This record gives sequence, structure tokens and C-alpha cells, in this order.
Amino acid sequence: MPEELTYRDAGVNIDEAERALRGVVGDIQATYDQNVVAGVGSFGSLYRATFDGIEKPLLVSSIDSIGTKTRVAAMVGDYGGLGYDIVNHCVNDILCQGAKPIYFLDYFGSSRLEATLFDKIVRSMAQACQENECSLIGGETAELPDVYHQDEIDVVGSIVGVVDFDRKLPRGKMKPGDALVGIASNGLHTNGYSLARRALFEVGGLSVRDGVPGLGTRIGEELLRPHRSYLHAVYPLLQDTEGIYAVSHITGGGLYGNLPRVMPSDVRAVVERRTWTPLPIFQLIQSAGNIPDAEMYRAFNMGVGMVLFVDRFNAPAVVQRLHLAGESAAIIGNVEAGPRDVQIV
Amino acid sequence: MPEELTYRDAGVNIDEAERALRGVVGDIQATYDQNVVAGVGSFGSLYRATFDGIEKPLLVSSIDSIGTKTRVAAMVGDYGGLGYDIVNHCVNDILCQGAKPIYFLDYFGSSRLEATLFDKIVRSMAQACQENECSLIGGETAELPDVYHQDEIDVVGSIVGVVDFDRKLPRGKMKPGDALVGIASNGLHTNGYSLARRALFEVGGLSVRDGVPGLGTRIGEELLRPHRSYLHAVYPLLQDTEGIYAVSHITGGGLYGNLPRVMPSDVRAVVERRTWTPLPIFQLIQSAGNIPDAEMYRAFNMGVGMVLFVDRFNAPAVVQRLHLAGESAAIIGNVEAGPRDVQIV
Repeated sequence: MPEELTYRDAGVNIDEAERALRGVVGDIQATYDQNVVAGVGSFGSLYRATFDGIEKPLLVSSIDSIGTKTRVAAMVGDYGGLGYDIVNHCVNDILCQGAKPIYFLDYFGSSRLEATLFDKIVRSMAQACQENECSLIGGETAELPDVYHQDEIDVVGSIVGVVDFDRKLPRGKMKPGDALVGIASNGLHTNGYSLARRALFEVGGLSVRDGVPGLGTRIGEELLRPHRSYLHAVYPLLQDTEGIYAVSHITGGGLYGNLPRVMPSDVRAVVERRTWTPLPIFQLIQSAGNIPDAEMYRAFNMGVGMVLFVDRFNAPAVVQRLHLAGESAAIIGNVEAGPRDVQIV
Repeated sequence: MPEELTYRDAGVNIDEAERALRGVVGDIQATYDQNVVAGVGSFGSLYRATFDGIEKPLLVSSIDSIGTKTRVAAMVGDYGGLGYDIVNHCVNDILCQGAKPIYFLDYFGSSRLEATLFDKIVRSMAQACQENECSLIGGETAELPDVYHQDEIDVVGSIVGVVDFDRKLPRGKMKPGDALVGIASNGLHTNGYSLARRALFEVGGLSVRDGVPGLGTRIGEELLRPHRSYLHAVYPLLQDTEGIYAVSHITGGGLYGNLPRVMPSDVRAVVERRTWTPLPIFQLIQSAGNIPDAEMYRAFNMGVGMVLFVDRFNAPAVVQRLHLAGESAAIIGNVEAGPRDVQIV
């Protein structure tokens, strides 16, 4: 007869999961607005579907993860920004449809649930939710030692937001002559980390502690800058400006992959590279890995986190409003006639 | 100067992801109901928040994964039930609040996106969504070779459902004397796979091709039975029966962990083991791994997939209705006075 076997012997520690959750429940509950009826601990989280001032409400949902940015966090030993990464990524995605977030759920997969690490990430998620006026109403942890490499995690988020049917994006008719207004990113956000790590650390032989040429910062610091949320800069604009036809979040696939997602089939986008300078971290990744230009623009945002498709006459005012909101923004190209395509010239 | 590096060299194949998605987009779109305004391919999926006949709608949300059931699927080479697993798990979770599902999103994390495997899982997800009258409106794939072991996957789902505020569960006052009505599971559903695999395949030295004593089936077949959905049996009951106070989905933590989630603090649940016989697969897992009884009831559902807390006078009729709906169901215990607790006697 073999020795007695327990769930914990098999790599799953239910007590640890419960303990970890108790540590952050206060932070989570601090994100609840008055519409949360039941949150963490319930089989399902309950949220009132009453949206004041929105006549024909649409729910807008998205799900995503932050990919191997988690590995850079492990290399640096700083997990405190990853919650912002997943929340802000999701917030920006539904902003492309004109929505403001209402609530968020997270999934935390790991080889082994490490309470202090979980704590840091969920606290930063809760903070990010508060900053985006979004309730963190549910989540799940899973310990899967046979699926995840040792000490590895996957952080997944699912968001629900709301927009009025008549204000949903894309809206109106995008046409030749419209302007592309780009808003600056602060780094890789949450995309391209597998390529960046390969280029910097394997091919280039660099470390997270090495400096970034031209900046007084280290590679680890630049790579870990949290994904920015464009909600507070862009959402008000969408409410009072009629010339904005579409919004694109520059995530995996870069400008090439994400601009067409909001474009009709009869226009192409022409992006002019001379209108901005890619952040130094992208230059370093490219030179370290000897990555072709086109591949860089396909894997990374290259310094442009969000693009608004704006009527040419409204574009200067939109840029100015973004500046007033603290964003770095510029007209980075325009819409031309032709089959749907993106050209970066 | 090193050779040119591409995103694909770093283990991320965007083309493969797009190709894989194109293969299943028809199945996905077949799940859309008339409320889906924008689905797969959008930054956010759009769904009309108009719920006919529901006066005070609450959105009910949950997120979960199917854990290492994926590893058994790999051992057997059959991934066709995993979509049912994740969808039905989520459907049952929100059913515990009285909700019916409206839409579902999935996240598919992997070491390397394998199109045929992805295809099988998403198709079964789409089928499960149709059977639960739920639209599969969005999803995401991620290739994370440095996070996942080779050929491993994590399948995560996020669901949104709706319930009227006045019909949400738990409701009414659970009290001593109420009955616990258990509905049969068909196996492990999606919980306890790390322990089951350890017990059967490592400690016990068995294989997925070995037979289950007392059944004419193989271990692999029993372990892969898809998580059942109780929506069609239980949801109608919730609409026309007043004596149902709470519903508990028996997932990770078993009866011990899941009954208290829906119980007030002044009652305890007493479950009588003699009222049902655990499925043969649980007996085999226990004997192979020499797992203590209490641990079995904490890791597995032991043959009870869902428990309804029902007024004692309504309980026989509820059991009969469940039988008519094709379920195997029985009174498996009752509610007694005392601090919140679960006793399995």
C-alpha cells in the first residue's frame, strides 16, 4: 500500500489560494461601485445592468493576457506594474469601440501559487481598476505545475464596458483625406516581449541591468513600464467631438495588424515614419537583434499606443485636446483611396 | 552582425494564429444571437444590453479554466470535449446565481499554437455555446513558449449571463430542515485532475488505456467525459418553483468547499454518503493513490455535480422534475442549525 496521497502532494494548495485571496480582498472591494451586488467569493459576480444616460446600451467585452512581460518582471523582481498592464490593455481595447469600462475579472494561472507575488499583481490590478473607474468583481487562480514552467505565470483579464449604440465606434464614414492622430506609448506596453527578450538577452547578450543608450534608465525599467490607459484622454473626446471615425489600439501585430481592424475595405492608411521617433528601447531591441524594419513595425507599437482616425478639419483640435489632457500626440499619417491596407513610408 | 531575427524565430507565429481563427470563424458566428452587434475580430465584442421580460437585470459573470484536464486530452489524443468543459463549467457557475448565459469569451494560452488542436477545442466550445443558447463573441490566443511546457495549453473562459434582481440566488431564508438535492455528475468534470493523474498514472502505474473495474470503459474515456451543463434541467425549475433557496456547483474544493459559498452563517449542511455511490472512477483514483476519504471529498465532486438547497416540502417534487428532465437526482442530506459548516457522514 503506497503512502497516503493528498491534493497538496499533487501540487495544488487550496489553503494557499484562500490565504492569498484573503490578503487582497480589501483592495478588491475598494474598487466596487454602487452597481456591484455580489463580488469575489460568489460563483458568479453580480452587476446591475442599469446604465444611466445611455439610451441603447451595448455591452463591450474583451479578454487578453500580458504575455511574457511576466518573464521580465521575474528577471527584475518587480511585479507591481503587471496589474496595470492587463487592466489598461483591456480598457484600451474596448475604448476602440467607444466604451467605458464597468467591470473586470482576472485569471491567474501559475505553476505554483506564490502568495506575495499574487498579492502584488492583484493589488496593482485593483489600483488600475480604480483609476479606470472599473470594479474588479471576480477572478480565479489555478495551480498547474504540469502546464506551466517552474515559477511561470499567465495573467489573463476579461473586461466588460458599455457604450450607447449610437455612439459606438467605428462610426461615420472614414474617407480619403482623413488624418491619423497617433498618441504616444511609453514602451512595449504588453506586446512583443518574446521577440524583445530574444533580441536583447539572447542575441544581444544584454541584461535587464544594462543602460538604454540615450536614456538614463535601465533596460529592465523600460521594458516594465506599465501599459498606459488612454481612457481619460480619449473617452471625453469621443463624447463631444463628431469627427472621430475610429480608434485603434496598437497591440500585437503593430500598426500593420491593428489599423485595418477598424478600417472599411475601400481605404488604406499611410503612416509617415518621419512624424515621430521610435522610443530608444525599440531602437535598442532592433539593433541588438538585427530585426528588419517591417518586422519591428509588425511586432511592436514603435512608440504609438493608439491611433484615432479623424476628419482632417477636426484633427488639429483633437491633437490639441490630447495635449491638454497630458498626452503626446501628433498627426502621423492619413487615409487614402485604395483597397484596405497599411503603408508605412 | 547577427542574422536577422523575426517574431517567428522568437516562437510567435501571427500568421498561424490568423489561419487558425479563419478555420473556425464560421462555427463561432453560428453561435451569435440577434443581440450580437460585433464579434470576433473586433477590439471588443458588442452585445445589446436589452433583456426582454427582465425588469431589473443583473449581469452575472465568471472566469475559469479547465486545469490539467488538458493533459489527459493529450494522453488520449482527444481534445474534442474540452470546449464543452470550459463552457459548461462557466454556465453552471452563473446558474448558481440564477442566471442564464448570454455570451462567452475564451482565452487559449499555449507553448505553440497548433491549428488542428485549436480548431477542435474552439469547435467544441462553439457547439457547447449553442447548446447553452450562448453567443461565443470573442477570444484571444497567446503563444508563450517560455511560460508553458512544450505542447501544453491552458483553456480559460469568461461568461456573462443575466438574472432578474428579484430572482437572483441565493434567495429566501435557508433554514434547518431544508433538503439538499444532489444532481449526478458524470465524472471529475474539470476539477482534481492533478491529484487524479498523480494517483492513477504515477502512484498506481496505470495508463489511460486501462479499464475501469466495474465498467466496460477505459480510464481515459472516464476522465475525459465532458463537464455537464445543468442549465436546461435547473433553470426552468428556478423560474417556477419557489422553494429553491440556493444552488451550489461542486467544483474545486468539492462539497466541503462549495456548499458554504451559498449558505448563511447560521446553518450547517449534513451530507449523507449512503444516499449515493461515488462513480467507479473515483473509487479507482482513491484506491490507486491511497487517498484519505476527506481528501477525496475535498478534491472531487464524488459524483455530485450540483446541489440545490430546497424547502423540505418542495424537495420531492424538485427531485421528480429533475428526473423528468433526464437527470439522476436524490435528496443527499439536509440543513441543520449550527455555525456554517459541512459534515459528510
